[in-house]
Amino acid sequence: MTTEPKLNVVPFVSVDDMMKLVLKVGIDRFLTELAAVIEEDFRRWPVFDKTPRVASHSQEGVIELMPTSDGTLYGFKYVNGHPKNTRDGRQTVTAFGVLSDVGNGYPMLLTEMTILTALRTAATSAVAAKYLARPNARTMAIIGNGAQSEFQARAFKSLLGIDTLRLYDLDASATRKCARNLAGLGFTIVECSSVEEAVEGADIVTTVTADKQYATILSDNHVGPGVHINAVGGDCPGKTELSKDILLRSDIFVEYPPQTRIEGEIQQLAPEHPVIELWQVMTGEVEGRRSADQITLFDSVGFAIEDFSALRYVRDKISEHGMFAELDLLADPDEPRDLYGMLLRCEKKLNAA
Amino acid sequence: MTTEPKLNVVPFVSVDDMMKLVLKVGIDRFLTELAAVIEEDFRRWPVFDKTPRVASHSQEGVIELMPTSDGTLYGFKYVNGHPKNTRDGRQTVTAFGVLSDVGNGYPMLLTEMTILTALRTAATSAVAAKYLARPNARTMAIIGNGAQSEFQARAFKSLLGIDTLRLYDLDASATRKCARNLAGLGFTIVECSSVEEAVEGADIVTTVTADKQYATILSDNHVGPGVHINAVGGDCPGKTELSKDILLRSDIFVEYPPQTRIEGEIQQLAPEHPVIELWQVMTGEVEGRRSADQITLFDSVGFAIEDFSALRYVRDKISEHGMFAELDLLADPDEPRDLYGMLLRCEKKLNAA
Repeated sequence: MTTEPKLNVVPFVSVDDMMKLVLKVGIDRFLTELAAVIEEDFRRWPVFDKTPRVASHSQEGVIELMPTSDGTLYGFKYVNGHPKNTRDGRQTVTAFGVLSDVGNGYPMLLTEMTILTALRTAATSAVAAKYLARPNARTMAIIGNGAQSEFQARAFKSLLGIDTLRLYDLDASATRKCARNLAGLGFTIVECSSVEEAVEGADIVTTVTADKQYATILSDNHVGPGVHINAVGGDCPGKTELSKDILLRSDIFVEYPPQTRIEGEIQQLAPEHPVIELWQVMTGEVEGRRSADQITLFDSVGFAIEDFSALRYVRDKISEHGMFAELDLLADPDEPRDLYGMLLRCEKKLNAA
Repeated sequence: MTTEPKLNVVPFVSVDDMMKLVLKVGIDRFLTELAAVIEEDFRRWPVFDKTPRVASHSQEGVIELMPTSDGTLYGFKYVNGHPKNTRDGRQTVTAFGVLSDVGNGYPMLLTEMTILTALRTAATSAVAAKYLARPNARTMAIIGNGAQSEFQARAFKSLLGIDTLRLYDLDASATRKCARNLAGLGFTIVECSSVEEAVEGADIVTTVTADKQYATILSDNHVGPGVHINAVGGDCPGKTELSKDILLRSDIFVEYPPQTRIEGEIQQLAPEHPVIELWQVMTGEVEGRRSADQITLFDSVGFAIEDFSALRYVRDKISEHGMFAELDLLADPDEPRDLYGMLLRCEKKLNAA
């Protein structure tokens, strides 16, 4: 970082820089530290300015803005969700985000968030499971082996010590890809050919399917007593992954109820169906898992505060490791009220050249 | 532009590139063409997805996100408003924006919008005045000679033929700066020492003050019959520029009523006080100015569609003139579902190097 502030410059973390930063820090350490920042922010949940994300829906997908602020910093993420994108080589979900200083409104960081969202989603799932899964959980089923699956596996290994994975995807090549990517990390990996097979003996069931043509990825008979369900894929109005019967047997934990009621698995339930806010479990106000037989469900849709945590974590890390470019994003005239004069001076300079 | 699409790349227009682009096109032509695009979008107002901007208020100011979509393109602007910023050399208002493809959710343009917002605000004011000011208007008073003032002057000259300016600011040095910047363009410029003096003989009165300590910049006795008031500065809850009496004598034209009722001059009026939507004047559904004696008021707060117009105009212009950099903003793995594998390949490459 420069010592003399250049008011026009915003640090920018590209996709390439983000990969280098994550690898420099180490994926496990990155997930663990990011999870700690997320947990820290969940514990001070009431200080945040919260609003359901602002979504622009079309036939093809959705574009969303997810802002929040703790009164000192402001962050927002732009994220799209377009299930058909993979057909022409694009990502279903891409994202970027900005962290700003509430005091002067100036952006302090612009960063890619496609990779960062994958990391923060996995870190959030693992933090939730730390409070909700049985303490001796070692085996996780992952239903849906797309872009998010390996990140979930690594976060659950780093934070909970999950060592056995049971993988299933409608598309067997996705399962092979996931297994290949996770080889050599100490996991016992079982490639399964059905949901039934995948959930066998699993302490934790993670559902993370993207193309939600099938409303019921997980049926009631798939879920035995004591299981923790980490439902990541259902995150859009009209799209869910779990059968309603599972929901009725589970204690349901959510991020921000006004958003989850619209987007999460609980859109299948009555608006007054009781849910528990995850942050209250972290502060100890409300109990998480109470017994070994209880079915717990984290109905994850992704909330702005998790992105805020990720943004402030990345801002800390680049001050230590670099891995950013300087972007000329903000007009900085010699005299603040002379924006037009800046244009005139640029003209003179161009004419002189 | 490259012929082979690089899916990770988003064209980025920096502040420096924006200045060069504006100067290359020419300020007058830029304002005139931009005004035409804004008018085109106002005429198809009903097709847009509209929402009041999403504001995060603090004691120091506000940070806002302004999204909109026409079903094919999606645009949003990030903009702050911090009146005290000029004290430490920062801009009161800075902005940047993104234009995206609704079909796949991918950003197509990231651009500075501090300069662009100044241009689009002035262009919008001038388009409105084309419909609302007397056709023979030649003299404009500008109350508030800060960062937006010269842009207003140039837009009104380009689009309406305004040739006489009567300038006033609480801070006489701001007036001198404005007059100096506008010298040599064919304006007759009168530097005034009071609002009373500035409005003398003005056909159009533009109020564009930023630091709204004084709720009443313009009093009832300042406004004679036939005047068009272009009220640009009042754009925040609790902050207005005009006395309520002026509003009661005027026909009031607004951009998007749900937003203007919260932020505009009309926050002083009852929620049912009649206002006219500017777009309906442009399509001919509603009459604009009906008589030479009528007082017309454009209660401008700035709406997302104007930024959308500006974004698509800039996107067209850079395809012609260049003036952009390629930003590595979007993750583009070889196989779309293999985001994690991209990290692994990056690791291999780094280890090999």
